[in-house]
Amino acid sequence: MEAVNIAEKFDLFSDHWKPRIVGRFNDTHVKLAKLEGEFVWHSHADTDEFFLVHRGELTIEMRQQSVTLRAGEFFVVPRGVEHRPLAAAECEIVMIEAAGTLNTGEAGGSRTVADPEWL
Amino acid sequence: MEAVNIAEKFDLFSDHWKPRIVGRFNDTHVKLAKLEGEFVWHSHADTDEFFLVHRGELTIEMRQQSVTLRAGEFFVVPRGVEHRPLAAAECEIVMIEAAGTLNTGEAGGSRTVADPEWL
Repeated sequence: MEAVNIAEKFDLFSDHWKPRIVGRFNDTHVKLAKLEGEFVWHSHADTDEFFLVHRGELTIEMRQQSVTLRAGEFFVVPRGVEHRPLAAAECEIVMIEAAGTLNTGEAGGSRTVADPEWL
Repeated sequence: MEAVNIAEKFDLFSDHWKPRIVGRFNDTHVKLAKLEGEFVWHSHADTDEFFLVHRGELTIEMRQQSVTLRAGEFFVVPRGVEHRPLAAAECEIVMIEAAGTLNTGEAGGSRTVADPEWL
């Protein structure tokens, strides 16, 4: 059992849209991802999704509204709500959500990471 | 639905060892607390407890080891593991744990916050 330094974990990878798992509590995974550009519209039927920006700026588009997060800000996308993350410049985010949640949710497709790596 | 700025929420209170709830996802609460000095030994039978340091330095004593966290570092105390948080100087932390978790866990006592305020 040891502390996890989030910045050090971000130094271990550079690719975009590939979440890594860095912790677990209860049935919940703590994941890190680097994002740049736009993702696919998707939703998660069975889990809310907690997004915290570590560095940079993230916009989460939803059908009814959009939210822009800067470092130190978080937002929860409720289960079932369609959303699309986008980042004009690279950003680093912490996601906390039910273990087993797919990054593309119900949408699937080529950008799905079925089995994220543990860092 | 809006973004939560963690630093702005910390500006809203100054007392120690009184967690505030700032978010919820699934059955999990996101709480903030300011700590200084030492807390009581306690454990939580039914939930792991995620601690992330926002500012300052936190030590989590356990019976077998201790862990010291600095800003940007997190640690998960597994359910059932006795622990005692302590901070030589004031620190600010984010805790994520099952909704309804008491700060003093199984130990109870005068420092219990039975119904944390939502900020």
